[in-house]
Amino acid sequence: MRYYIGVDIGGTNIVTGLLDEDFNILQKLSVKTNAPRAAESICDDIATMSHKLCEMQGINFDEVLGIGAACPGVIKDGVVSFASNLKFENVPLKGILERKIHKKCAVCNDANAAALAEYASGSGKGYNSLVAITIGTGVGGGIILNGRIWEGFNGAGAEMGHIIAVPGGRLCTCGNRGCLEAYCSATALINDTKEVMLNNPDSKLWEISGGIDNVDGQTAYLAAKQGDKYAQSLIDRFIKYLSIGVVNVVTLLQPEIVCIGGGMSAEGENLIAPLDEMVSHNAIIKTLAKAHRPKIVAAHLLNDAGIVGAAAHIAGELKK
Amino acid sequence: MRYYIGVDIGGTNIVTGLLDEDFNILQKLSVKTNAPRAAESICDDIATMSHKLCEMQGINFDEVLGIGAACPGVIKDGVVSFASNLKFENVPLKGILERKIHKKCAVCNDANAAALAEYASGSGKGYNSLVAITIGTGVGGGIILNGRIWEGFNGAGAEMGHIIAVPGGRLCTCGNRGCLEAYCSATALINDTKEVMLNNPDSKLWEISGGIDNVDGQTAYLAAKQGDKYAQSLIDRFIKYLSIGVVNVVTLLQPEIVCIGGGMSAEGENLIAPLDEMVSHNAIIKTLAKAHRPKIVAAHLLNDAGIVGAAAHIAGELKK
Repeated sequence: MRYYIGVDIGGTNIVTGLLDEDFNILQKLSVKTNAPRAAESICDDIATMSHKLCEMQGINFDEVLGIGAACPGVIKDGVVSFASNLKFENVPLKGILERKIHKKCAVCNDANAAALAEYASGSGKGYNSLVAITIGTGVGGGIILNGRIWEGFNGAGAEMGHIIAVPGGRLCTCGNRGCLEAYCSATALINDTKEVMLNNPDSKLWEISGGIDNVDGQTAYLAAKQGDKYAQSLIDRFIKYLSIGVVNVVTLLQPEIVCIGGGMSAEGENLIAPLDEMVSHNAIIKTLAKAHRPKIVAAHLLNDAGIVGAAAHIAGELKK
Repeated sequence: MRYYIGVDIGGTNIVTGLLDEDFNILQKLSVKTNAPRAAESICDDIATMSHKLCEMQGINFDEVLGIGAACPGVIKDGVVSFASNLKFENVPLKGILERKIHKKCAVCNDANAAALAEYASGSGKGYNSLVAITIGTGVGGGIILNGRIWEGFNGAGAEMGHIIAVPGGRLCTCGNRGCLEAYCSATALINDTKEVMLNNPDSKLWEISGGIDNVDGQTAYLAAKQGDKYAQSLIDRFIKYLSIGVVNVVTLLQPEIVCIGGGMSAEGENLIAPLDEMVSHNAIIKTLAKAHRPKIVAAHLLNDAGIVGAAAHIAGELKK
C-alpha cells in the first residue's frame, strides 16, 4: 500500500494526518504550535508525529510516499517568504522537512491546500477545475486548474478577499478600500449586525444574540430564520456582495466548481441557494447552457481540508 | 524545416499566415469573410490559401506541421458554439478544417489567440504566465498559465470586459451593470469625451476633434497632451477604472505579465506608465518585492496577433 502524510501548520495547532492513496484520513495527531517558534523545532515535531502516525496504524514508514505541509502565508518553491502568525520570514520549510524526514516533501499555502482538498476528495471530486472561496474571519481562496494549484508566478495569487468589490468603498485591513473581505467576511457581518442592532432596538437580533457583545457570524442567520427583517436585509446584502466576488471569479476563470468554505459555509444551502440564484442572473452567465455554468457548492472537508490538501499536493508533486 | 499556418477568421477578413518554428510570419494572404457564409466555404478558402502560402515561399506542404485558426466566440474542443458576427452556431470548425486540409488543426477564440501570441513571440516572450487585456470597441482578454490558454471548462472564460468594476454602475451592452467594458472601452471613452464636450464649450476637445461627430478613442489623449484639463480628467478616470480590472486580475492570478492590447494600447507608455503607477499603489501589490510584481506592458503584435496566436496554439496542441 501507499500512503501520504499531510500536515496543517496553523497559528494554534500543528495537525498531522496519515492518508491512503484516496486521501482518506486513517489517523491524526496534533501538537500546539506555540508560535513564534523556530521552524527547526516545528519540523522536529512533524517528524516525530509522522513516525508515530505510522506506528499507530502498524504501517512501515517506507510505505509513506511523501509529506505535504500547508501553512499560512506566501510560499514559493518550498520557501515561506512571509507568514505573519507563525512569524516566518524566508523559511525554507520544504528543505528543513526533507532534511529531518528523509522523504520528498512539498509545502503550499493553507488556503490553496483547502481548495486542492475539495478538488481531490471533497465537493470538487471528479471535476477538472475549482475555485474555493473561504469565508471566515477573513476571506481567502484557492484556484485549481487542470488538477493543479495555480498560486501565481510569485505564490501570492488567489487572494479572493482582496478583489475590489466596491471602488472607494470600506477600508480593508490590508489598507485598500472596497475589498471583498470588507463586506463578506464573518468579521464584516458581525460589525454590520452590531450596527443594525444599535439602529434598531426592535430587532430580534437583540434577543437572539443575548446582547451586542455576543454577536457572531451566525447571529444574523438565526434572526433571519425567525423572520427578522433587519437580519434578512443583512444576509441579503452579504450575499449580494459575495455574488460580485463569485461573478468576477467566474467571468475570468469559468471553473467547473465554485466551492464556498470557511465558517460561514456552515449555513449550507441557506447561503448557497440564494447565492446561486443571484449569480445566475448575471447576463454573461445566463448566456451559457445550464450544464455549462459553474456549479456553486459548499465545501465538504471543513477542518480536515488542510491535511487532505497538503497530502494531495505532495501526491501531485510526486507525479510531475 | 518545420512550419505552421495561422488563420484569423474575423468578421471582415480571413487572414492566413505561414510561420516558422519561432512564429515569425514569412507570408500572409487574406480574403474577405463575406459573413454570413457557410463554414464549409470559409474552410475551402483557408485550404486554398494554405497551399498558396507554401507555393509562394517555395515550401513543401508536408513541412507544415499543423494549422491553427482563431475566431470570435465561445469555442470548446474545436467546436464554435456561438460566434455572433460570423453567424456560427455549433460549428465543428476543427473537424471541417481537418477534413479539407488533411493536417492536424486546432481552433481557439481570437482574444485567447492574441494572448498566446504575446506569450509566444510578443511582450510576454520568455515568461510563464500572461494575462492580456484587449481594449478596443469592447474589452476582451486571454489568460495564459504555464504556457497554455486557460479558457474555462466551458470555453467562456477570460471575459475581462465583464468583470464587475462598479456594482450597480453603468449599463453594459451585455445587460449587466457596472462591467469594466462600460468604463474602459474605446466606446466608453468616446461617449464620455462627447459628454464632457457638451458640458464644457471651452475645452480644447472641440478644436482637436473638429466636432462631436469626429470624436474617437484618441481625442481625449490628444487634448490631454495639449494641457486640456477636461481631457486629462477623462484619461485619469479611464485609467482609474482600468486599474480596478488589472488589480482584480492580479489579485486572483498574479501572472508575470499583464499585457494591454487593442486600439487603446497604441498610446503605449502614456497609458502604461500611469496605469502601472496606479496599480502599484494597491496595498496587496505593495507588499510584494518589485521583482515579484506582475509587469504591466503594452502588446507588441497588434494586427498579427490572431495568426501568430493561432499558430502558437496548434504548436502547443501538437506537443501535448
